[in-house]
Amino acid sequence: QGILERLDAGEIVIGDGGFVFALEKRGYVKAGPWTPEATVEHPEAVRQLHREFLRAGSNVLQTFTFYASEDKLENRGNYVAEKISCNKVNEAACDIAREVANEGDALVAGGVSQTPSYLSCKDKTEVKAAFRKQLEVFMKKNVDFLIAEYFEHVEEAVWAVEVLKESGKPVAATMCIGPEGDMHGVSPGQCAVQLVKAGASIVGVNCHFDPETSIETVRLMKEGLQAAKLKAHLMCQPLAFHTPDCGKQGFIDLPEFPFGLEPRIATRWDIQKYARKAYDLGIRFIGGCCGFEPYHIRAIAEELAPERGFLPEASEKHGTWGDNLSMHTKPWVRARARKEYWENLKPASGRPYCPCMSKPDGWGVTKGAKELMQQKEATTEQQLKELFQKKKF
Amino acid sequence: QGILERLDAGEIVIGDGGFVFALEKRGYVKAGPWTPEATVEHPEAVRQLHREFLRAGSNVLQTFTFYASEDKLENRGNYVAEKISCNKVNEAACDIAREVANEGDALVAGGVSQTPSYLSCKDKTEVKAAFRKQLEVFMKKNVDFLIAEYFEHVEEAVWAVEVLKESGKPVAATMCIGPEGDMHGVSPGQCAVQLVKAGASIVGVNCHFDPETSIETVRLMKEGLQAAKLKAHLMCQPLAFHTPDCGKQGFIDLPEFPFGLEPRIATRWDIQKYARKAYDLGIRFIGGCCGFEPYHIRAIAEELAPERGFLPEASEKHGTWGDNLSMHTKPWVRARARKEYWENLKPASGRPYCPCMSKPDGWGVTKGAKELMQQKEATTEQQLKELFQKKKF
Amino acid sequence: QGILERLDAGEIVIGDGGFVFALEKRGYVKAGPWTPEATVEHPEAVRQLHREFLRAGSNVLQTFTFYASEDKLENRGNYVAEKISCNKVNEAACDIAREVANEGDALVAGGVSQTPSYLSCKDKTEVKAAFRKQLEVFMKKNVDFLIAEYFEHVEEAVWAVEVLKESGKPVAATMCIGPEGDMHGVSPGQCAVQLVKAGASIVGVNCHFDPETSIETVRLMKEGLQAAKLKAHLMCQPLAFHTPDCGKQGFIDLPEFPFGLEPRIATRWDIQKYARKAYDLGIRFIGGCCGFEPYHIRAIAEELAPERGFLPEASEKHGTWGDNLSMHTKPWVRARARKEYWENLKPASGRPYCPCMSKPDGWGVTKGAKELMQQKEATTEQQLKELFQKKKF
Amino acid sequence: QGILERLDAGEIVIGDGGFVFALEKRGYVKAGPWTPEATVEHPEAVRQLHREFLRAGSNVLQTFTFYASEDKLENRGNYVAEKISCNKVNEAACDIAREVANEGDALVAGGVSQTPSYLSCKDKTEVKAAFRKQLEVFMKKNVDFLIAEYFEHVEEAVWAVEVLKESGKPVAATMCIGPEGDMHGVSPGQCAVQLVKAGASIVGVNCHFDPETSIETVRLMKEGLQAAKLKAHLMCQPLAFHTPDCGKQGFIDLPEFPFGLEPRIATRWDIQKYARKAYDLGIRFIGGCCGFEPYHIRAIAEELAPERGFLPEASEKHGTWGDNLSMHTKPWVRARARKEYWENLKPASGRPYCPCMSKPDGWGVTKGAKELMQQKEATTEQQLKELFQKKKF
Repeated sequence: QGILERLDAGEIVIGDGGFVFALEKRGYVKAGPWTPEATVEHPEAVRQLHREFLRAGSNVLQTFTFYASEDKLENRGNYVAEKISCNKVNEAACDIAREVANEGDALVAGGVSQTPSYLSCKDKTEVKAAFRKQLEVFMKKNVDFLIAEYFEHVEEAVWAVEVLKESGKPVAATMCIGPEGDMHGVSPGQCAVQLVKAGASIVGVNCHFDPETSIETVRLMKEGLQAAKLKAHLMCQPLAFHTPDCGKQGFIDLPEFPFGLEPRIATRWDIQKYARKAYDLGIRFIGGCCGFEPYHIRAIAEELAPERGFLPEASEKHGTWGDNLSMHTKPWVRARARKEYWENLKPASGRPYCPCMSKPDGWGVTKGAKELMQQKEATTEQQLKELFQKKKF
Repeated sequence: QGILERLDAGEIVIGDGGFVFALEKRGYVKAGPWTPEATVEHPEAVRQLHREFLRAGSNVLQTFTFYASEDKLENRGNYVAEKISCNKVNEAACDIAREVANEGDALVAGGVSQTPSYLSCKDKTEVKAAFRKQLEVFMKKNVDFLIAEYFEHVEEAVWAVEVLKESGKPVAATMCIGPEGDMHGVSPGQCAVQLVKAGASIVGVNCHFDPETSIETVRLMKEGLQAAKLKAHLMCQPLAFHTPDCGKQGFIDLPEFPFGLEPRIATRWDIQKYARKAYDLGIRFIGGCCGFEPYHIRAIAEELAPERGFLPEASEKHGTWGDNLSMHTKPWVRARARKEYWENLKPASGRPYCPCMSKPDGWGVTKGAKELMQQKEATTEQQLKELFQKKKF
Repeated sequence: QGILERLDAGEIVIGDGGFVFALEKRGYVKAGPWTPEATVEHPEAVRQLHREFLRAGSNVLQTFTFYASEDKLENRGNYVAEKISCNKVNEAACDIAREVANEGDALVAGGVSQTPSYLSCKDKTEVKAAFRKQLEVFMKKNVDFLIAEYFEHVEEAVWAVEVLKESGKPVAATMCIGPEGDMHGVSPGQCAVQLVKAGASIVGVNCHFDPETSIETVRLMKEGLQAAKLKAHLMCQPLAFHTPDCGKQGFIDLPEFPFGLEPRIATRWDIQKYARKAYDLGIRFIGGCCGFEPYHIRAIAEELAPERGFLPEASEKHGTWGDNLSMHTKPWVRARARKEYWENLKPASGRPYCPCMSKPDGWGVTKGAKELMQQKEATTEQQLKELFQKKKF
Repeated sequence: QGILERLDAGEIVIGDGGFVFALEKRGYVKAGPWTPEATVEHPEAVRQLHREFLRAGSNVLQTFTFYASEDKLENRGNYVAEKISCNKVNEAACDIAREVANEGDALVAGGVSQTPSYLSCKDKTEVKAAFRKQLEVFMKKNVDFLIAEYFEHVEEAVWAVEVLKESGKPVAATMCIGPEGDMHGVSPGQCAVQLVKAGASIVGVNCHFDPETSIETVRLMKEGLQAAKLKAHLMCQPLAFHTPDCGKQGFIDLPEFPFGLEPRIATRWDIQKYARKAYDLGIRFIGGCCGFEPYHIRAIAEELAPERGFLPEASEKHGTWGDNLSMHTKPWVRARARKEYWENLKPASGRPYCPCMSKPDGWGVTKGAKELMQQKEATTEQQLKELFQKKKF
């Protein structure tokens, strides 16, 4: 059954986790460029990660084609040891995802994301051409559906959706925004409306913000759609990092990005809370982005097992709410084999010289910047940056 | 070249990271039993993790035989879906490690760890028989050397060393203790002396404590050996978790163990500091235990690259001290592409309702318990527990 | 010169600090009732505190008549060792304030605050009678102007202003609210408008929230007045506690209230920042409430010394920005004798087992409650409480 | 009854709190010099603080003669507006203390503390002359007993005790040291032994460290006396600041000293725990130093009320363990009117950008410095400083 049939029938669809962060830690992706040439260089590593997510409960395997548009790969080409063609990266990604999807009950989704072309020139034809080039591979490899993801500007996301719709396949679209909206100041509600009007059947957010913030953003999208009397399925794929302190542009501006985020990593219990809240809001496509490891995806599947009626395969190696601790030799560890314990634990960082919150770098969160934005004195990122430099917020 | 040839020549030998924690998160090991039947059930997952450590710079691949003594596997048998024999688990572990070691320049080390038999009966013959059974497999598979690791009681560790020495192969021995010594109150210095006298050529610590505490423990071992005019190579394989707040028994007693340790995970920069400190103390076998992921091992290899003269393969995908951020579009992120930034960062947890430190459960750290121990009123764990229950520290 | 002459001339008027908290710590006020019978029982203690505020720079000495309405004193009568009449308390308060004011350049302000009568019956005549009884004393003792302060409901505050205006003296009015407005959901802007229309020449906030939050609330008041084309002087007397985590009802709901607030106490440098921000917003009556000790008031006077042209008397015993440390014997302490040091210091709590933020008790901050309030389903505190109990937010 | 009669009879004697910190905040003492010329300039402020401590339960009023030796006052003379003679300061201090002591059941103790002379020249005769000059005033004013306090070097403390003993009055002696001992490396046990041999009837610690650390130091003193078969009463007057992170020289080296210590201030409940622990160790002279306000002293008196059989006068204005909250209108505040609540509260700082612990400035805590000290390579502060500068710990 296709993605829309599942969602229309009320099924919960579980997404997968974050490839670039997980593979960076495993040694196959370079932070900075974040490009997916590992599909060609080290397919076994990509395959294994797909397999772990499948085992953890993912119903959708996204092709590892993040930032795999031709312009991005060329842009970052100096990082790639031997030059690998854009098509080769995308094709290998499709093959690996399909191979693993066939090992279980999962769909393959081809994904496109924001392009350097948009940021530098904003020429619609050129940007669309980049998406179309990736789409050709997805069509050749016959993925099950398509996702336009990780867009900071709804304008570009709309162009992506328009291209992907040419395929006739179902299209999902997510933006990497928070409750303050896109970088041009378009609200989450308006973003959702534009994406649905462009043809997306599923809309939501991914990346840049933690689960709690991301759910709030989807809530605003839902309200926007309701107000516009539009219908779409909702999707959420947040970070597995706690980021209550980040500004409009999300975790990129946090001083810990990208090499000091460890103390912010969500526990499996944090993710269970996220899954429940997402479900309660009516989100039915629930997954993760950067920071989500296989055990985080399993946590979604376990939290929603009562609704879905089954556990994922990887739960063979996991007791619900820690119940596998009940045979421990120490009584105080046995006492942790219960839901209340893990639900209420406030885990310590073991870092007494570190604070809880950081002030984001850049102009992200300054009050002055926010006010300017609201006052429409600055409507684009660029103008805001200039004002920032002039006025020293 | 064998392990002793390398160490005798003054080489730095980099160990590998923690299998049970990494594979638990990937969905192949169950927390609680922590047994390695994945070598038979999912060899591809074990192989991939070995490969990532190799790529990250490990010179030693330990067979994934942690807790794979017959008594332990039986003890936890109910967790294993279909009964898998002890020999089968150990043999598969050897085969996988050797296969990956052959892909690079690494040695294979067969490992034994503490047994339930010791805790329940303390019969020397019986305990030694359990080690001997594993040793037979290691000899058949011809591992390069042997490690007795994760012992809380030096008495049992000595028995293990004695059995492993029967093989004629070099033997390393590590204990999972902190500066307060083993569970019977034997000091780190005394532990080291007994292990060397029993035949270990390499001694040190692994697991249970963070890098800083573990280095302090090895320092005490070194002093003990010097005082006894004994010689041995030093080894350190700590947690990749910050645990300044844990008591005598280490991170097991922390309320976050094992499912809420995320905020304590060390950054790569923390590990670089560890590698430098370990090197400065004269430790030449430097690796990790629970919590160490491939990128943590790479951090050791990168920190010590000036001394070793080369970088590991996985550094192709990693800039030294974040220098791959120098091409980022945002100036404030580019400003992070330097050593001083990451060295001095005090990463925030993003968890404003959580503290920095926890009080360990159990009797681990109570002052009263410590005093009793010092006063020799209680010399065994059992006696101490009884006193604990009676006196309500 | 009177209060309005001063403010109209553009002078900065510095208020005093918090009597009930300071005298509670000195042993003369009981937390809970918070009533001011100390004016009769221990006049020397009240006099000394007035004197310290005067010395620190206060231009206004408020009579210590907080909660000194007859209904409140009777309500709490059981706490007062020997029954002291309402008039006696208020008269003594006026005498002490005047005596100290005459020692320097300060005005005496008679103050009334919210009454139990309002909360229990809401009968306008009865509530006004309580205010009028206190006003009679203030007129007899000829205070310089009047303050209606610590009101959670603008309706009652308006009644108080109406009574005080009968005197012909200038009237200031402050509410103990945050940016979410009063307990009936009236916004800060609307509160300000109503108070000015009732006759207040000075409006603002006091108590319940930290300086940063309080300034934000006054900003909203200012905007409300501008929109309504009304004019009034602005006033701010916040807590000297950091309370970023409190809900609609302020610090009362924080778990630390009132006996565990110590780690939240503002430093003198925090208060200098507050004084500057308040000044920059156009607030010219700048003081403090609970938690403000004499040295906090001095910090306001020192921060605004460039604008005012003089330092307070107590600055004889205080170096600007720590410059009195420049003669310390230790070089690292001497290095603290500069503005940059204290401005940027992030002071540690020395409490590693404590978090940074608390979840307020009660229904204060629940999202559900807030939404209900916004949706006008619940417009009174009582209705909200009932909904809260029914729906289990 | 005199101090020794009381202590010999097993009475608990409650000391007073910290004058220089309390009066600095009230505007009468300058941080840096910390000298007590307020006894002449503003006697009413000193009198009021004495009175508050008396009311809170103090049985001993120390003359406010801290740092009032002639050499210190001259040294700091530039801070004193009009030159006030040493004798005048000391005489006024005695008069004020006696006046207030007569209002209740308290003894007056004349106090001397460490001198600049000792640090600069170390000439025994000269240093003793400075103490003798103060003693003459204490004899003329007939104080009840004498305290030598705030000594970092036991050698100077012994000289002070020798001088004070010339009077024939009972002598108490406290040092401002932690468990690591005095600045010359003399252990707490040895310090206690030397002080008792010099004639002190009461020994202990004051200032520089938090209650927990100070009790540990007194424990070591007690052990030293027991080992030497000497007898003395024990005394403890710690900071009311949490300082788990400070090094050998105490809170002076913490970056927050002296103007950013607020988040470290102890709650009344922290002090009740301190009082109980001090009592349990056998300490019978229990008071406080810097940071102790009247309500902290009251907390000692309330905690030990069961043993003493009475409450202090100021408890009229204080409910035991918050029981005065039981009539609050909000149920969740009423729920705080019980011991368990306050005993277990982990108060939040409301400072999300601040850490829990600081690294002390200077050479205080460096491991290298400690080791040097232990190795006897450096036995004086000066030598250590030089080593510090050379070796860059």
